[in-house]
Amino acid sequence: MTDFNRHPSSYHHWQLQIDGDIAQLRMNVDSEHPFKEGYELKLNSYDLGVDIELADAIQRLRFEHPEVKVVVVGSAQERAFCAGANIRMLAASTHPFKVNFCKYTNETRLSLEDASEHSGLKAICAINAACAGGGYELALACDEIHLVNDNNSAVSLPEVPLLGVLPGTGGLTRLVDKRKVRRDRADVFCTMAEGMRGKKALGWGLVDAIWPKSQFNDKVDARARELAASLPDKGKKGIELEPINAQRDGDTYTYTHVKVEVDAARRLATVTVTGPTGPQPKTGADYEKAGSAAWALRCFRELDDALLQLRFDHEQVGLIVLQTRGDAAAILQVEKDLVADRGHWLCNEILLQMARTLRRWDLMARSTYALVGEGSCAAGAFFEMTIGCDRVYLLDDENVKMTIGPLSDGLLPMSHGLTRLNNRFLAMPEQAAKLAKEQGSYASADADEQGLCTYLLDPIDWDDDVRIALEERVSLSPDALTGMEASLRFGGAENCDSKIFGRLSAWQNWIFTRPNATGEEGALTRYGAPESAKFDWRRT
Amino acid sequence: MTDFNRHPSSYHHWQLQIDGDIAQLRMNVDSEHPFKEGYELKLNSYDLGVDIELADAIQRLRFEHPEVKVVVVGSAQERAFCAGANIRMLAASTHPFKVNFCKYTNETRLSLEDASEHSGLKAICAINAACAGGGYELALACDEIHLVNDNNSAVSLPEVPLLGVLPGTGGLTRLVDKRKVRRDRADVFCTMAEGMRGKKALGWGLVDAIWPKSQFNDKVDARARELAASLPDKGKKGIELEPINAQRDGDTYTYTHVKVEVDAARRLATVTVTGPTGPQPKTGADYEKAGSAAWALRCFRELDDALLQLRFDHEQVGLIVLQTRGDAAAILQVEKDLVADRGHWLCNEILLQMARTLRRWDLMARSTYALVGEGSCAAGAFFEMTIGCDRVYLLDDENVKMTIGPLSDGLLPMSHGLTRLNNRFLAMPEQAAKLAKEQGSYASADADEQGLCTYLLDPIDWDDDVRIALEERVSLSPDALTGMEASLRFGGAENCDSKIFGRLSAWQNWIFTRPNATGEEGALTRYGAPESAKFDWRRT
Repeated sequence: MTDFNRHPSSYHHWQLQIDGDIAQLRMNVDSEHPFKEGYELKLNSYDLGVDIELADAIQRLRFEHPEVKVVVVGSAQERAFCAGANIRMLAASTHPFKVNFCKYTNETRLSLEDASEHSGLKAICAINAACAGGGYELALACDEIHLVNDNNSAVSLPEVPLLGVLPGTGGLTRLVDKRKVRRDRADVFCTMAEGMRGKKALGWGLVDAIWPKSQFNDKVDARARELAASLPDKGKKGIELEPINAQRDGDTYTYTHVKVEVDAARRLATVTVTGPTGPQPKTGADYEKAGSAAWALRCFRELDDALLQLRFDHEQVGLIVLQTRGDAAAILQVEKDLVADRGHWLCNEILLQMARTLRRWDLMARSTYALVGEGSCAAGAFFEMTIGCDRVYLLDDENVKMTIGPLSDGLLPMSHGLTRLNNRFLAMPEQAAKLAKEQGSYASADADEQGLCTYLLDPIDWDDDVRIALEERVSLSPDALTGMEASLRFGGAENCDSKIFGRLSAWQNWIFTRPNATGEEGALTRYGAPESAKFDWRRT
Repeated sequence: MTDFNRHPSSYHHWQLQIDGDIAQLRMNVDSEHPFKEGYELKLNSYDLGVDIELADAIQRLRFEHPEVKVVVVGSAQERAFCAGANIRMLAASTHPFKVNFCKYTNETRLSLEDASEHSGLKAICAINAACAGGGYELALACDEIHLVNDNNSAVSLPEVPLLGVLPGTGGLTRLVDKRKVRRDRADVFCTMAEGMRGKKALGWGLVDAIWPKSQFNDKVDARARELAASLPDKGKKGIELEPINAQRDGDTYTYTHVKVEVDAARRLATVTVTGPTGPQPKTGADYEKAGSAAWALRCFRELDDALLQLRFDHEQVGLIVLQTRGDAAAILQVEKDLVADRGHWLCNEILLQMARTLRRWDLMARSTYALVGEGSCAAGAFFEMTIGCDRVYLLDDENVKMTIGPLSDGLLPMSHGLTRLNNRFLAMPEQAAKLAKEQGSYASADADEQGLCTYLLDPIDWDDDVRIALEERVSLSPDALTGMEASLRFGGAENCDSKIFGRLSAWQNWIFTRPNATGEEGALTRYGAPESAKFDWRRT
């Protein structure tokens, strides 16, 4: 079981220091402490372990330090800001691990942008030395990039010329779509191993400011203070994020509100999420007192952890079956209270955490079927999870309901910016609007009428139909399903985020499988070896 | 040299029949006449040869039959409408051929949609029998889909369940983005090998009308007449499209206005396009008299052919060097005259042909560098080709100019809907607007100021710098370049077309390289064999 819990007191690779409304987050990768054996993390290069700490640091800034308005992302090493993802690690990894690693690092960078857009936490990247590949991609996820102006410190994306792969952690997309660098300049930049320094990097829009080495720290500090001063206060004191630990018993993971049962032989996993029981906090102040034990936060943090376990530790699971449990009224009350006090920083953060977890759910490269049967509770955020599935099987029983809550009208957007209702009803936007406004509870036959399920099943057929559906799904080609689901789940709109996952990642996945990158004579395999790569020159 | 010329009088696979303002285009694939040896084209399955005829038919309808307002796309075979791309052909093809084949068939279907949107030529698909895979993808590219309602005639996308690949000719994208089929229904439909018939297909939005077999032809005819009656007249008599034949001498292709020189050893091709000489037609009526010999039409038809030769017959060419020649004033005059009489069907068609050819240019999976040096003529549509390149090398010489014409403000849109100026200046839309409005001619130093070139080179450095630039580019991983260019060329907006090329095709390319599809035990390889496919179940 992979432990995704980290704490600043025991970080190996980052230093997090809070000074009033400014945080310093400095990368200082311990080269002798890789996530797996077999490679050294030189020059602040990173692997999954480094990125889990980064994700933890961002989470703690959001929940434990609402007083922080600006985080300065820097390096504690003089010789390198960051050399990007560790190449030996990539070269030695399996294809599924590479893909999952890239997806996780993408989600971490998106959480930084999410904090900037929705939490009033801005990020300044302070590049004090060489910044290559994934290092520059981290910079691209920050709001501002400051570069030391000397002869050594360049920003670069050397993946294409050196490794024969893409800068796939959002680099290409953020260059042209976020920073709007001119396409021909982006082309030049992405093919030059040495990258760009100083004035040229500034002139081409690759960085936002350059400073002489002697003034660098002062200038970055001054800018951080200036930026912080321009941002409103949100909270004084945060809550502590307790670790998330499932009890693992064989292939069953039991959390407080989430349970995962893996049936390896059938390549199935059942994820059961359960609503709140007992009294819940009403206001932001209540939530501050309750801390991370409150259902609204804990349940989705547990779900986040469960999804990561499935991605990394159960690669062969092809289908996730969703079951919802609990009291619909209790879920809706929690959601209404959160919305009512949404101006409170913690209510806001809890809602944003829910939204990020549901986006991770949408982005599982596994089929997802929701079983809305006896005892189910497809309400509120659990309703969102349900219609976020590839299919919804609904039991035809008047006691089985689907219930839309106050978060379905925009507070839990998908990666491409649409609500799940709008995404579901692309052809009938008026139906999506009606359902979001009504916030109704629909007994199963009515839910079917409203277009909320894929199949309405008679109780007599339920067991057999469901069994056959599950068996059929896991019999199909896992690759074809991944490509199909990536194409069908996100209709209509696109944005920078969805282009990263749908367009850039698809190309990267392709390139990762090609002999030109990962074959015996491929560029990624041969990086650093005396012989250079040998290419099949046919262009496709 | 592949011959992309076809003529209805010698079609092997289609029947084209014109009856007033309605055309009948019936698929009748000659199973004994494959494009390459080694497979039979049973059940109206198709290969490149079949699709070249289809592309020809659409072109002829547009240019030779302006009187036609509705084309009914049907089948002349009783047992099958179309079984899709031939599986034996796909299984036996190289990866580059598969990718190029899919891109060509995608472009053909887009030309049908382009004709519907811009030429007043609507397409009705009349599905008289089983319609699977690429057959249904062709239907999806039509404006209306009519299905015979009987026990045998289903529409289906069986690629995922039967072949372990995607419906990659736009199928997945058009289902959810064009027809806006609900995502969970699309999921079900795309995983059921048998497809859907009759009322269910209608209810799920997979087809627009169903008719009993006995009434089918009459109902479709009636609808075609009704639709045609609702559309305005555009022209009475078309022009004849003469064949496009280059003189091939070794690796040099010489057309009238286009020349391609392939340097196989250096993996380079130089494409030289030349502007009009002598008097050109002014009005639509003049163009009707001039026929397909007029420069504005012939030059871009030749370029289209040249690009296809490069794609299919020179897979190892990694870099295309663009050279422009001619008289800028003459090009701009032609363009102004075309715009002035754009209400004339033929001027409209010629402009649309230019736009399609430039989109094919944008979609070359090769690097493209424009050399704007001595004697060059980067004007009008040639200016568009120039800034459509990954890079522009401009000679610093007051006689060398870049000239923006009247077509740059929206008449030659890229696949994702933006003008090339808007796509270039995503960060400075006001600069794009200014340049489009000014329609200026900029001497090289000024062109550089305006942001129109990547590098302004001193005459002394020109030869060396250009040589080194070309050598460097062709030394890089061809796969990484393809993925990089696909990500950098199309910034900002996305639409159905660009999602087909950038998202769907990327996933399909990945799947085509995976052992689960094309390995010895893969589903595509084993289709029809007694043993079923064996999968690596790890999901990525």
